[in-house]
Amino acid sequence: MESEIQVVEDAMRAIVQRQAARFPAVEGSLPIYRVLSYHLGWLDERFQPTGVSSGKRFRPLLCLRACTAAGGTPQQAAWIAAAIELLHNFTLIHDDIQDRSMTRRHRPTVWALWGDAQAINAGDALFALSQLAALEAASQLEPTRGMELLSRLNETALRIVEGQVLDLSFESRDEVTRDEYFGMIERKTAALTAYAAWAGAMVAGASSELAERFADFGRALGLGFQVQDDYLGVWGDPLQTGKARGDDLRRRKKSLPILILLERASPDDRAWIHFAWRHEQDLDPATVERLLTLLEQYGVEAAMQETVRRLHVEALACLGELGLPAERTAPLHEIVERLAVREA
Amino acid sequence: MESEIQVVEDAMRAIVQRQAARFPAVEGSLPIYRVLSYHLGWLDERFQPTGVSSGKRFRPLLCLRACTAAGGTPQQAAWIAAAIELLHNFTLIHDDIQDRSMTRRHRPTVWALWGDAQAINAGDALFALSQLAALEAASQLEPTRGMELLSRLNETALRIVEGQVLDLSFESRDEVTRDEYFGMIERKTAALTAYAAWAGAMVAGASSELAERFADFGRALGLGFQVQDDYLGVWGDPLQTGKARGDDLRRRKKSLPILILLERASPDDRAWIHFAWRHEQDLDPATVERLLTLLEQYGVEAAMQETVRRLHVEALACLGELGLPAERTAPLHEIVERLAVREA
Repeated sequence: MESEIQVVEDAMRAIVQRQAARFPAVEGSLPIYRVLSYHLGWLDERFQPTGVSSGKRFRPLLCLRACTAAGGTPQQAAWIAAAIELLHNFTLIHDDIQDRSMTRRHRPTVWALWGDAQAINAGDALFALSQLAALEAASQLEPTRGMELLSRLNETALRIVEGQVLDLSFESRDEVTRDEYFGMIERKTAALTAYAAWAGAMVAGASSELAERFADFGRALGLGFQVQDDYLGVWGDPLQTGKARGDDLRRRKKSLPILILLERASPDDRAWIHFAWRHEQDLDPATVERLLTLLEQYGVEAAMQETVRRLHVEALACLGELGLPAERTAPLHEIVERLAVREA
Repeated sequence: MESEIQVVEDAMRAIVQRQAARFPAVEGSLPIYRVLSYHLGWLDERFQPTGVSSGKRFRPLLCLRACTAAGGTPQQAAWIAAAIELLHNFTLIHDDIQDRSMTRRHRPTVWALWGDAQAINAGDALFALSQLAALEAASQLEPTRGMELLSRLNETALRIVEGQVLDLSFESRDEVTRDEYFGMIERKTAALTAYAAWAGAMVAGASSELAERFADFGRALGLGFQVQDDYLGVWGDPLQTGKARGDDLRRRKKSLPILILLERASPDDRAWIHFAWRHEQDLDPATVERLLTLLEQYGVEAAMQETVRRLHVEALACLGELGLPAERTAPLHEIVERLAVREA
């Protein structure tokens, strides 16, 4: 996988370095492109090179493999995959500010190190860098296709922002329905995975119809990815996830386990949950423990696992509907299998 | 002017409304596109339509008039002018968060009304909307020209973010040189006015050489605009600017008047200024008064007026170098004249 994704890493570095070279060395000013490079895992917090890139690079890998499944080469997808990963990282930097998250990939977040104001700038710069990478991709395509690649990227960016708007809005509500939750994660997570698979197929020269089927696959995969994230946020191994056990509960995130619990709980238990939820700060350990007990009592862990499984089955069904030879879609199959057992 | 700019307003509204129609009406969620529309002056804080748009719309007007000067029509520039104004407003929303500015155009800022987190989202959405408007513009051009229009827009976005990075970095420094200041405002303000003039000429079909001369004009104009802003931040009429007298001084902004004052002041006065500057919060009224006295004593107001005048002369010289008939450049002349006497 490391070597497979190397073309994307190279494209990302090329885009960032071209602009970094233009930034003046003004004494005392924040080296913004190094701050980005820290976030992308290339530098440590003193701006020294790190051994390996952090981050799963799941979305660019999906894009690359969609491209080869549709008959292209990894190189053809390198620029648009780079654009996707840069866009994703722009949203991460801004999300971390908004959620007051102190750590990301086992390291301090950008806002925690350099403050909110400069973290906003770092995110904004990544958004523009993502566009420049996408323009490189578009310039290699027939013009109409290139324009479609770019329009849909920006519509996807809007969907992601909308998902974040909804997610933040949910925090101040007592109840969120399962439909509302799925409408939110379809924007926040699945829109970009759908785009990654679609764009990979597009740059390989797939027809619009085939590319849309790739998008369906990416969407199912993204929904499964997010539900699995919600699962790990409660039951994940702290050593693997880098978060304390039950961290999402402590932070009172309205993630899917809580929504399922509220659907299933008795009136008394629901009342207690709502009461516990009305804190302003983090929940105390005893409350988290009680929530974990309730989640077990109402079989929520099993329900979560079943939901993830159903979404992975759906993703596999989408793969089948591509109508492509099994050896071409095998690397995409492998992504689904790997996500199904991921623990971080 | 109102009717002249109407094509741009229409383009901006079309871009925003197309996406707003896709946003679900989820109970209790923030209507993000209405929040944008509030910022753009179309709605009030209860999301009721306002009589007139607020904001100077200086950049789209410059773009439109550059287009007609280069032989095009206002309609040809409508989409790219809309992209420019949307991009500008994205930076305003994020700047207001970063600078903790409570009011903008005599109204509460987005973060002041809906919080930092959702204001970050509103800015991000405007950035993506700007791209969609620019894509409309690019699709009407020959592909290579279209790509150049888009690349340069995003390089300009990076320059603006870099300018903001520098501006924020300057806040924690005792001294900033005039060169550093001009390097900062060239990015933060002049990069976009240069782009506006360049893009207007480009969509009209100007040669690269001619378009670059338009960029030079836009750059000089932008520098003059920002220096005038710094002037008004100290000596502007509160009724016109919507800010208290000496507001920039109170907020300890390292604007040009302060840099000139530090250059000219005696060692004792410099020491006092540095001492006064080392507050954590706003300066008290007595300190602001003393600064105003020093600014008068060292002739800084006159020096500022001279700097603005010099930049406007430079802008007019750039106009002359376009080598176009006077009747075609007259509307651009008029912009320079109007900026030279603006009081808000």
